[in-house]
Amino acid sequence: MAKLIIGIDVGGTKVAGGLVTLKGQLVKSQVVPTHADKGFKTSYGQIEYLIERLVKLAGGKDNVVGIGICAPGPLNPKAGIVINPPNLPGWRNIRLASLLENHFHLPAKVENDANAAGLAEVLFGAAVGYRDVFYVTVSTGVGTGVIINKKIYHGKNGVGGEGGHVSIDFRSPYRCGCGTLGCIEALAAGPAMARRARVALEQEHNKPSLLRELSGGDLRKIDPVMIQQAARRGDEVAKFIIDETGFFLGAWLGGMMSLFDPEAIIIGGGVAQIGKPLFDKIRQTMPSYTINRRFVAELPILPAKLQKNVGIFGAASVFLPSGEEAGAAA
Amino acid sequence: MAKLIIGIDVGGTKVAGGLVTLKGQLVKSQVVPTHADKGFKTSYGQIEYLIERLVKLAGGKDNVVGIGICAPGPLNPKAGIVINPPNLPGWRNIRLASLLENHFHLPAKVENDANAAGLAEVLFGAAVGYRDVFYVTVSTGVGTGVIINKKIYHGKNGVGGEGGHVSIDFRSPYRCGCGTLGCIEALAAGPAMARRARVALEQEHNKPSLLRELSGGDLRKIDPVMIQQAARRGDEVAKFIIDETGFFLGAWLGGMMSLFDPEAIIIGGGVAQIGKPLFDKIRQTMPSYTINRRFVAELPILPAKLQKNVGIFGAASVFLPSGEEAGAAA
Repeated sequence: MAKLIIGIDVGGTKVAGGLVTLKGQLVKSQVVPTHADKGFKTSYGQIEYLIERLVKLAGGKDNVVGIGICAPGPLNPKAGIVINPPNLPGWRNIRLASLLENHFHLPAKVENDANAAGLAEVLFGAAVGYRDVFYVTVSTGVGTGVIINKKIYHGKNGVGGEGGHVSIDFRSPYRCGCGTLGCIEALAAGPAMARRARVALEQEHNKPSLLRELSGGDLRKIDPVMIQQAARRGDEVAKFIIDETGFFLGAWLGGMMSLFDPEAIIIGGGVAQIGKPLFDKIRQTMPSYTINRRFVAELPILPAKLQKNVGIFGAASVFLPSGEEAGAAA
Repeated sequence: MAKLIIGIDVGGTKVAGGLVTLKGQLVKSQVVPTHADKGFKTSYGQIEYLIERLVKLAGGKDNVVGIGICAPGPLNPKAGIVINPPNLPGWRNIRLASLLENHFHLPAKVENDANAAGLAEVLFGAAVGYRDVFYVTVSTGVGTGVIINKKIYHGKNGVGGEGGHVSIDFRSPYRCGCGTLGCIEALAAGPAMARRARVALEQEHNKPSLLRELSGGDLRKIDPVMIQQAARRGDEVAKFIIDETGFFLGAWLGGMMSLFDPEAIIIGGGVAQIGKPLFDKIRQTMPSYTINRRFVAELPILPAKLQKNVGIFGAASVFLPSGEEAGAAA
């Protein structure tokens, strides 16, 4: 049997795991509930249980190269420590990599989910063929991964690559959960889109909008999916919100172009599903916010390719540090 | 005789050159006028002439490892091309590295001045002992160098590492020479400091300030040196301008901390001479503009060490790509 990597994606409600080949093919996958509310011991137990099942499915430990785990931050990938993820109550400075290595006698690595997803796109997804890539995922937050020479850039404490928390509006009244005023997550992620739509509709009480219908009249219920639906049906307010989101992302990515001059920018996450109107606005805005404007036209700005199992692929990716063996797949 | 590197710093008024040992000691230096106004042929001739003299001083070509040249951007270090520096009229897409290699039969490399200065600080200056460093020089512009694993980060087209052109104020009315609205160069470099001081004094006609005296009553003549002098003598407007500069730099460096989580930040250039009041404000501001706030307190934020000959050291540095042979010096 070919060598396999166990990729584990730890979320607040479920833990997804899979067996991934060195060529980037997912051959088996399994899901168990996290039982996060029952605290560390239970949720850690679920992870161990899932890995045990995957080791069996792999035909035993000898067929497994290692265990890659991705989880939401904050975490320290260099030390394999999960610091205190908001969605895993009771987890505090858990040496997850060591715990699993001691239990399974297999190498284990822990990685931040956006970093892992970025690497997975480079190894198996939209960025195959590129080495220096800026990866973005826009959903309830803005996560990024800086991939340099096909490796995740970590920084001194393992907390680098957090481009979602770079401010483009130092005067902004919007403070991100991270504490930064006006970082791109505070302006452009799903909740910020919903807030902007609500405010736009509150400012003009009489303005008709499909968003009033879709939210059942309760503007607090507006979400990015409604905005996308309304925009597709021609709603002006929804189209404006998407345009503004593209503008914010473009102004911010202009700065990333000045800093990284990457081979490609990959954009994933739920908000990226909006597609062409969003990507067009990003591309149109970037040249006004970078010294490297003359290279924007030829810069590939691509939608992410890995969707459903991006967490499993991402977790597995960290076990292909050079990425040399990997090819396009998924 | 020990092996030497020729380091050449091409400026608009003079070309400075020196012989630098592999340990980072400057053993000889020479300066010639650029004669930039006489066009490419003359100014290129001055560079060749200076290198010829340095080769002789080195005791012949056999003692020279290579020729490193730093110049203001835009340039492409990967291809060794100087694109079109504003202060070198007539230079347009000049293959400077190839020209010198063909003439001298020695390896030659061209580098952007801020990148080179950053590398020099890592190899010979304030950042000796660190591998991942964010270098900033604040003077008439804001130049930066991203040093990763003791190497300059270049990006795909050789134009990465331009952190001075990341916007922290997308709504700003101030457009940088690079075209970006509200990039840190447009807000915090010397000319922006002078502009802010002038506006502050125009807004309050009756407010006394040493800056009125120092500028001889012509507020357009205010420069960063006057602001620093006035602040030292307790002038309130001048102190406010410095404080605001530190705030802008801190908000921006907070974003750089989120992205790079560097081992150290080095700040050079004329504006950095302001010293403690500026550095204190930067350190005080950064935590409010980064997700990595818990690591700011222990982050070294150091003044640059190389002053007078930073261009020569920078140019020579690009010939020590690994930096392994270099030690503290200068």
